[in-house]
Amino acid sequence: MQFAKALECIKRLNRRIGCESVYSWNTAADEYIIANGDDFVSDAGKLRADGEKPAKKGESLVKDITNMEEDFAQWYTDIVLKADLVNYSDIGGFIVFRPYGYAIWELIQRQMDDRFKASGHENVYMPMMISESLLQKEKDHIEGFAPEVAWVTHGGSEKLTEKLCIRPTSETLFCAHYAKIIQSYRDLPKLYNQWCSVVRWEKTTRPFLRTREFLWQEGHTAHATAEEAQEETLRMLDIYHEFCENVLAIPTIKGQKTESEKFAGAKRTYTIESIMHDGKALQSATSHNFGDGFAKAFGIQFTDKGNQLQHVHQTSWGFSTRMIGGLIMVHGDNSGLVLPPKAAPVQVIIIPIAAHREGVMDKAQYLQSRLASSSIRVKIDSSDKNPGWKFSEHEMKGVPIRLEIGPKDIEKGQCILARRDTGEKRAVSLDEIVGEASALLDEIQANLLSRARAHLESRTFSAASLDEMGSILDSTPGFVKAMWCGSEECEDIIKEKTGASSRCIPFNQERVGDVCACCGKKADQMVYWGRAY
Amino acid sequence: MQFAKALECIKRLNRRIGCESVYSWNTAADEYIIANGDDFVSDAGKLRADGEKPAKKGESLVKDITNMEEDFAQWYTDIVLKADLVNYSDIGGFIVFRPYGYAIWELIQRQMDDRFKASGHENVYMPMMISESLLQKEKDHIEGFAPEVAWVTHGGSEKLTEKLCIRPTSETLFCAHYAKIIQSYRDLPKLYNQWCSVVRWEKTTRPFLRTREFLWQEGHTAHATAEEAQEETLRMLDIYHEFCENVLAIPTIKGQKTESEKFAGAKRTYTIESIMHDGKALQSATSHNFGDGFAKAFGIQFTDKGNQLQHVHQTSWGFSTRMIGGLIMVHGDNSGLVLPPKAAPVQVIIIPIAAHREGVMDKAQYLQSRLASSSIRVKIDSSDKNPGWKFSEHEMKGVPIRLEIGPKDIEKGQCILARRDTGEKRAVSLDEIVGEASALLDEIQANLLSRARAHLESRTFSAASLDEMGSILDSTPGFVKAMWCGSEECEDIIKEKTGASSRCIPFNQERVGDVCACCGKKADQMVYWGRAY
Repeated sequence: MQFAKALECIKRLNRRIGCESVYSWNTAADEYIIANGDDFVSDAGKLRADGEKPAKKGESLVKDITNMEEDFAQWYTDIVLKADLVNYSDIGGFIVFRPYGYAIWELIQRQMDDRFKASGHENVYMPMMISESLLQKEKDHIEGFAPEVAWVTHGGSEKLTEKLCIRPTSETLFCAHYAKIIQSYRDLPKLYNQWCSVVRWEKTTRPFLRTREFLWQEGHTAHATAEEAQEETLRMLDIYHEFCENVLAIPTIKGQKTESEKFAGAKRTYTIESIMHDGKALQSATSHNFGDGFAKAFGIQFTDKGNQLQHVHQTSWGFSTRMIGGLIMVHGDNSGLVLPPKAAPVQVIIIPIAAHREGVMDKAQYLQSRLASSSIRVKIDSSDKNPGWKFSEHEMKGVPIRLEIGPKDIEKGQCILARRDTGEKRAVSLDEIVGEASALLDEIQANLLSRARAHLESRTFSAASLDEMGSILDSTPGFVKAMWCGSEECEDIIKEKTGASSRCIPFNQERVGDVCACCGKKADQMVYWGRAY
Repeated sequence: MQFAKALECIKRLNRRIGCESVYSWNTAADEYIIANGDDFVSDAGKLRADGEKPAKKGESLVKDITNMEEDFAQWYTDIVLKADLVNYSDIGGFIVFRPYGYAIWELIQRQMDDRFKASGHENVYMPMMISESLLQKEKDHIEGFAPEVAWVTHGGSEKLTEKLCIRPTSETLFCAHYAKIIQSYRDLPKLYNQWCSVVRWEKTTRPFLRTREFLWQEGHTAHATAEEAQEETLRMLDIYHEFCENVLAIPTIKGQKTESEKFAGAKRTYTIESIMHDGKALQSATSHNFGDGFAKAFGIQFTDKGNQLQHVHQTSWGFSTRMIGGLIMVHGDNSGLVLPPKAAPVQVIIIPIAAHREGVMDKAQYLQSRLASSSIRVKIDSSDKNPGWKFSEHEMKGVPIRLEIGPKDIEKGQCILARRDTGEKRAVSLDEIVGEASALLDEIQANLLSRARAHLESRTFSAASLDEMGSILDSTPGFVKAMWCGSEECEDIIKEKTGASSRCIPFNQERVGDVCACCGKKADQMVYWGRAY
């Protein structure tokens, strides 16, 4: 058969250039595609005509990424590099956000910023440097951050009279500003937010999860009363929770941090915690109530309606590029990234099959313009790589929907639609594709959330003793619910003996016993314990 | 008369609290408003009923800003502070972008980013730090920037083995990245852009115009051929030019910088130059063609279609927050900022008159929702300040359109519309207000541009000699067109003798003589000379 010969020829050529042939099967159209190295482009159109199925159906191009069940850490690193999210820089712990990685951040930023503005917040921009004396104004704060800041000591050719640190967070800058601009109750509340990058001199780093420089938003607000500040602290936690669920398709546990895990200078720290595919916990966002501690340190006072001088009550809350790491570890699989449509820079990728054939590119472009006019983020991959190669690339990048369109499809008035989340493929009439794709994007978004929720539930356990906690965390890592007496001593023992580096006192309390899992004394608080990133 | 008594009473009270009464006349409605200090709120509604005109009609609240004709520099400083654009920080040369100032930057960013994306560019984010060795890779570049960078020497408690500078610009980072990711002609062009902040340790600083940290975008592209790189360099200059005209309503002169003013490391530097109200020039954006100089220094090579190894050709181009300074100095007047509608965070401000009267706030909110649903950025000022005070505040902030609505207006089914650019006021039927406001925003945008263009033209002169150039720049600062032989010696003499610190060789060449204004030798090039910010 002609096809068998062609196939042999391709295999031989590929072997010579050190590239392995890979096959992909377009079930619905009952056609196959041969994918191989970038350097040898087979004429998929010609070969498709034959109809013979390739020997290694379903094999993919991404076998060079580590299997996630074998080495989750390496799988993660493979994905951040191979999905073109980031690249390393020449300075350790600093990363380059490549276009695809940065586009995810832009989508997060835009959708979160809309929520901030809708809830009355305004954006500002503070200096990136903080003088040593300003950083030292709040005692707990400087103790928490001094060990990990980067210091600027020279400007141009001159030594500075006072060294400046690159902001690790901007509480001190906002406080100094508030002290200047707040005078009367009329100036309150101040609901400010800032999008910027911060620097913390971490010892061990991993792309997104822990880097020396990262991008984030930090909200800083000032209120007339303690009640308002507490409301704001919880309002922002709710916004983060809702955002993670509805945009990132990541369910989170809302709760409070223990005293020992509070933010440096905060009165109360709240957190949303999520669980990754490997069962480790990820602190996804935090919201802090500062009370009037910073206000007293910085002298932020206002005249109230009764003409009395009062200190303001403050909050701060932050969400960072670390959650791109969360996106990867919650939804990804062995073919690469899986992006929820709302966080996907490309929601639909169109792959023309036999693009050189008359009418194929026209039809692909027509398809693109119809989808784009329904506000779907859509691209055509018109590169000269072959289709199977492209399939793997866009699977690696986690594009939610792939549409294949070739001469046979056009004849039948259809295209082939493949879902990234389930791998399911089917033919869809071109007349119905816009509605189908829109509905499917919603369905994929919902499916990813329910899949993640099922995983979270399957990884949530209860334990009554230290031993039980430890053995669960060793065998099936996840959240372990256990009672806690509230003493820092027990907290430290549990952390040390079980490796539970993360703890969260959930708002949704339930009793999983009566006594502390550590000391056996009466306990009222249930805590989620986990090993954290 | 009752009113006269009330007026006296208000004046007395105001004098006691050290606050001067100010009057504002609502011509169309034939009603007046009494405005005074924040601490004493007159009942404008009651007083309006009287009908007596105040003594000092038209007087405004902003008399405490310096007159621009008397001291332009102080007028500028007054505006940036009083329009709530920025505030100073505790570190010299660093500013706080307040919500109103940052909102202008967000509008610029959004509209410019749309243009970048439409022309095929992608956003990335590079590290904020550059190692000393990386910065030194391109000789001219390091010479240009080394004297003004800030150096990080310590991370946490440790001294770094190599000092790092905060990026003053990111050519070196982009080049190092391009050297890693560009291999084949298939990887070209790379059309990257970055939004970030940069640091240059300037000696004298002024808000927006020259600060040690500023916000900007920097585009960095790599191309297969010199022709493509040159096309890109000019394409981006065109985008800047179009953006300044259509969004900022600032006409600019497109041209090339002389050899001595080129960017450090560039082969050719292009610029758009604008003229401020005081006749000084402002370099508004620049676009550089690097040729293959950086590519050779950093080893950025690709295999072309003929399988030959080639160096890429590069460009970079930037636009910064300095142009917010341009906006102020081109359009502002003695009442404050005047914003073109496309760069105005608030396009229409609604001021309820006698807001406590039944139906007034409802009508104001109804008006707001109708305007907002036509994509107009609209706000109600419902603070407890009195109307005249509000008028002055929003004039200071340069809001293009003010709408006043009070009980009498509602009775007549109208509101009072005031234009910021001309000060004109008229009654507009509530039925027609949405269409009227939309059309008027376009008209104001166009009016500001034509006003700025007329100013640019009126400040453009020709001169044939050094003396003539100097006396024009002394008496009526602006652009002076003069012929130049092209020698650096003449350039230096002209700069020294006339104070023309800025020069631009415009694309639109015309002959204003045959010989160099300096040396008298034959000259082919006409140059725009000016004193620059």
